[in-house]
Amino acid sequence: MKKLVACTAFGLAALSVATSAAAQSNIEDAIKFRQAGYAFMSWNMGKIKAQVVDGAVPYNQDQVAAAANVIAAVANSGMGQLYPAGSDKGTGFRETKVKPEFFQNMPDVGKLAGDFNAAANELASVAANGDQNAIKAAFGKVGETCKACHDKYRAK
Amino acid sequence: MKKLVACTAFGLAALSVATSAAAQSNIEDAIKFRQAGYAFMSWNMGKIKAQVVDGAVPYNQDQVAAAANVIAAVANSGMGQLYPAGSDKGTGFRETKVKPEFFQNMPDVGKLAGDFNAAANELASVAANGDQNAIKAAFGKVGETCKACHDKYRAK
Repeated sequence: MKKLVACTAFGLAALSVATSAAAQSNIEDAIKFRQAGYAFMSWNMGKIKAQVVDGAVPYNQDQVAAAANVIAAVANSGMGQLYPAGSDKGTGFRETKVKPEFFQNMPDVGKLAGDFNAAANELASVAANGDQNAIKAAFGKVGETCKACHDKYRAK
Repeated sequence: MKKLVACTAFGLAALSVATSAAAQSNIEDAIKFRQAGYAFMSWNMGKIKAQVVDGAVPYNQDQVAAAANVIAAVANSGMGQLYPAGSDKGTGFRETKVKPEFFQNMPDVGKLAGDFNAAANELASVAANGDQNAIKAAFGKVGETCKACHDKYRAK
């Protein structure tokens, strides 16, 4: 019996190590995927900025609409799942910049995320219609909702 | 006159260094953004796989449709721009795995990219309707188009 207990205890210990490694891997993946989502959105925000706000690149309705569709699709993809418990620290593609306060203020984070989603959907909607003034205004609102969360919950 | 020429030559050399640094930064950004796009798609492919193919997670039509929308939006975002000349080597989030052959076979790459776009759009279309058998089939086709490019143009 002693042997069995010892084996079981070892088995449990081994399982616990495995689970912990898996949890760590899940956290690193979650941080990597959320960083990927934000980085890919930033590329698409940059294209809209260049074409509609700065005029640095000639306006192309299809390209701007496609960029806005990316931002809306990423916004609507349920990125909240990418902030599991324990992911306040860790490295995905690089070390996370999220502040611990993010995880302590979930109702506020939810409100900010909702504002962002609404602004992203509005941007996609006006980008499909091609009214550059409306796109510029909607783009500005998206940027404000990004900044609102960064100012509170992202380390410099 | 000699001094002016010397200054101008220096000015040109300085400009050339600045341009080269900017070009390098653009290449690193391009690699980073394309890695971000693929990583974010892989998260969304994983969600569809878990819910529709493996059944590891209960099927949720809204989540699967949102995931498919991400994949289609990223596919339609003009990622070809993220493969500028010189980006066959370099580090974005990590060192690129693209093979030099990618840049030497652009017509083939264009064909593979077109296949991927068509499959991604079909997946988004059937995911919106919620027929799990159709989603599973369309998901399989997207996976095939990913693999077709990876097998030829991505280092192990």
